[in-house]
Amino acid sequence: MSNLLRDLREALSGVTVIAGEDVDQRYWSDWYRGHPTRPLALVRARSTDDVSAVMSFCNRHRLPVIVQGGLTGLCGGAEAEADAVILNLERMSGVEAIDLDAGTMTVLAGTPLETAQKAAEAKNLLLPLDLGARGSCTIGGNIATNAGGNNVIRYGMTRAMVLGLEAVLPDGTVLSNMNSLVKNNAGYDLKHLFIGSEGTLGVVTRAVLQLQPRPLFRAAALLATASFDALVGTLTAVRRGLPGSVDAFEVMWPEFYGIVTSEMPKERLPIAQVHPFYALVQVSGNDEAHLAASFDEILFACSERELVTDAVLAKSEREIEAFWAMRDAVAEFQRLVGPRTGFDVGLPLRKMEAFVEHARVGLASRFPGAITAFYGHLGDGNLHLMCHVPNVTTQPKKEIEDIVYSIVRDLRGSISAEHGIGKARTAYLNYSRTESEIALMQTLKRAIDPNNILNPGRVIAV
Amino acid sequence: MSNLLRDLREALSGVTVIAGEDVDQRYWSDWYRGHPTRPLALVRARSTDDVSAVMSFCNRHRLPVIVQGGLTGLCGGAEAEADAVILNLERMSGVEAIDLDAGTMTVLAGTPLETAQKAAEAKNLLLPLDLGARGSCTIGGNIATNAGGNNVIRYGMTRAMVLGLEAVLPDGTVLSNMNSLVKNNAGYDLKHLFIGSEGTLGVVTRAVLQLQPRPLFRAAALLATASFDALVGTLTAVRRGLPGSVDAFEVMWPEFYGIVTSEMPKERLPIAQVHPFYALVQVSGNDEAHLAASFDEILFACSERELVTDAVLAKSEREIEAFWAMRDAVAEFQRLVGPRTGFDVGLPLRKMEAFVEHARVGLASRFPGAITAFYGHLGDGNLHLMCHVPNVTTQPKKEIEDIVYSIVRDLRGSISAEHGIGKARTAYLNYSRTESEIALMQTLKRAIDPNNILNPGRVIAV
Repeated sequence: MSNLLRDLREALSGVTVIAGEDVDQRYWSDWYRGHPTRPLALVRARSTDDVSAVMSFCNRHRLPVIVQGGLTGLCGGAEAEADAVILNLERMSGVEAIDLDAGTMTVLAGTPLETAQKAAEAKNLLLPLDLGARGSCTIGGNIATNAGGNNVIRYGMTRAMVLGLEAVLPDGTVLSNMNSLVKNNAGYDLKHLFIGSEGTLGVVTRAVLQLQPRPLFRAAALLATASFDALVGTLTAVRRGLPGSVDAFEVMWPEFYGIVTSEMPKERLPIAQVHPFYALVQVSGNDEAHLAASFDEILFACSERELVTDAVLAKSEREIEAFWAMRDAVAEFQRLVGPRTGFDVGLPLRKMEAFVEHARVGLASRFPGAITAFYGHLGDGNLHLMCHVPNVTTQPKKEIEDIVYSIVRDLRGSISAEHGIGKARTAYLNYSRTESEIALMQTLKRAIDPNNILNPGRVIAV
Repeated sequence: MSNLLRDLREALSGVTVIAGEDVDQRYWSDWYRGHPTRPLALVRARSTDDVSAVMSFCNRHRLPVIVQGGLTGLCGGAEAEADAVILNLERMSGVEAIDLDAGTMTVLAGTPLETAQKAAEAKNLLLPLDLGARGSCTIGGNIATNAGGNNVIRYGMTRAMVLGLEAVLPDGTVLSNMNSLVKNNAGYDLKHLFIGSEGTLGVVTRAVLQLQPRPLFRAAALLATASFDALVGTLTAVRRGLPGSVDAFEVMWPEFYGIVTSEMPKERLPIAQVHPFYALVQVSGNDEAHLAASFDEILFACSERELVTDAVLAKSEREIEAFWAMRDAVAEFQRLVGPRTGFDVGLPLRKMEAFVEHARVGLASRFPGAITAFYGHLGDGNLHLMCHVPNVTTQPKKEIEDIVYSIVRDLRGSISAEHGIGKARTAYLNYSRTESEIALMQTLKRAIDPNNILNPGRVIAV
């Protein structure tokens, strides 16, 4: 094995290759922390050529490669393996160009999302991808996992923002698909192979992203409804009243609202009473007066129609930030409640209520006293669930997952709306995808990575 | 060969199989009419099972299959071959379901676009795909070619509207990928393999489409500018002023405007004077007063800034229709001018002017007296060009294409923004795509269609 490392170092002259025993524990796993593992070696690529050299060497020697971006993944896709080389892209960071006419950005894969967001902002443009991990996650990881986040209802997932990309194939071939045209039907649109396939078909090294005009003003409200129907009715009213201007419609069930506000003094709570549903709604646009008046009017009409039973309009940017801080306090769940098993499921709007009910009952009857907290992106059909079972030394993750994913399967939902499959969910992939779909995924994987060296064991078994 | 036909009929009991000598000439080619050819046979599938049986039989017998939708393609993708079976999907027509909550439509591949549009409209929803061939082209063909059209600037290409689909693979496997969720990251997003690959990887048989709320009011103007910069400035102003509300920004160069208005009496022309650029701009929304006032204001500001030199606002729906009729009169080019060689190129905004200039000069110097007419979708970077060379018995298509495509290549544009490659443009594919991209397309084709029986010779040579 030490010969292999020596040969790797030789093949990659000038590139940092850290032997397994010297690899910092930070690189042993992503945020999922399934089985943090010391890898064979860690390579810190500086360029596409470095990535190509690594892949070419590892393909020749049948060495597994695990690609790492910002390590914020939630399903173990970037977790190290004892026999694998970690290909880390953190050094490939930087915004290479912003084209003001076209509103596009050319960016390296290792660039943190927040860095790219700020570069767009500095040119008065918007990179509309946004998620809690923005400070750490990288553009390459966002693309590989087709990241979702808070603004999908308005701008779509990462896939919708990628015009072109460069990727290194498992055999080291550099695939330049740096399209910057909005319309290009000259042959297969290859970028889609690499978006959302979690690094199993190629290593994304740079990309051309479509930016958007930055809306000048935003308005937000926290509201409560008495029923799920009323919640859906409110979403429809906001969408119809301000088409194309709804940034977010985040729903919180009362357990979730209770947990994230548990450390706030009661008199500082925007809505102190307990309601069946809470929603954080944000709209934005360029015509401040029209935006504010329309938003007011829509919410007022929703109250009149008894859809909305309580509502607080943010009176300042600071109050909007405070609403979001509450929603983002989900990151504190572990501290506030305890270790959790998390879910990210996709469901048709009309099946969400049934899902919540079945999951609540199913988990409570199997694990009396279990704490379940539901929240999600209503307009996208995306629900998150956190479950904590009290008084156990280890959370019964597998049993909890079996219960929840069986409900998802029976409701014909998706076991992963935005987080992906990684290593954590491969066993459940057939709950959401047919046999012929999985067979076609395997055909693609075998055709592009015949030696199964790139992120092996992720997404699908080959 | 007659044995093969007998066996095919036997394998497809109950399905209409028409022998080559009885095949109506309508099925010999699409609108491209490269080399209309009598096929071996024509099969009129009624169901996905029929399609599966045809593919399975033809795969076993290594019989080429050409798929036909509405036959409106402009690059020979659906043209028959003497040794091939035509798989026609016209009988697989119908909207199966519209889900009002999710705003989705489930539709069979052979459904004409206009039928699907009207079904959406009847439910007060919008299927935002629209193109001149709407009455004949089918949803399956729209998906296979990733059709563009008039509203791409606002709603994207067909790809952006497809949530899920069902496709039959070359070996007859039915791939059900009928996703209806906005967010679904459970494994590879396989639908993208079939969207825009022009039927070379599978036969699309049905789909789930995302519909949009139908805007209640629209406004349109025909305007003229003195320079390309002023045109771009106007586009930017309209987009900023009414973000998310711009349906179309169609630009016409003066030759084009002259041809499409040549049969109108001068006093009825909306703009009678000759200008360097004309544009048809349409916006729409739900707040009529706000829409009209904003649009007025934006156009007035553009005049004040001397971006717009002449403008006519449509005063009624009828006038809007009249503007569009002018733009759509491009279909009359052949009658008004003569046989033409047509182009559909994609270019960065800032290279459009250079393209027009180089193409005009290049064609005029090689073919004195050549008539060239440019028009296109400015916001999408998509230009069309018609060229007619007078006083020749046959249009020198190949030479014209060599001249135009070389300019596109040198400007790093796309040889096909929306029409696709088909049979007509395979020789130029490498003008817009790299060697490694074409190699990867071939890898995909070989993996999914190892016997090369499905639409062979389309898009890429294998």
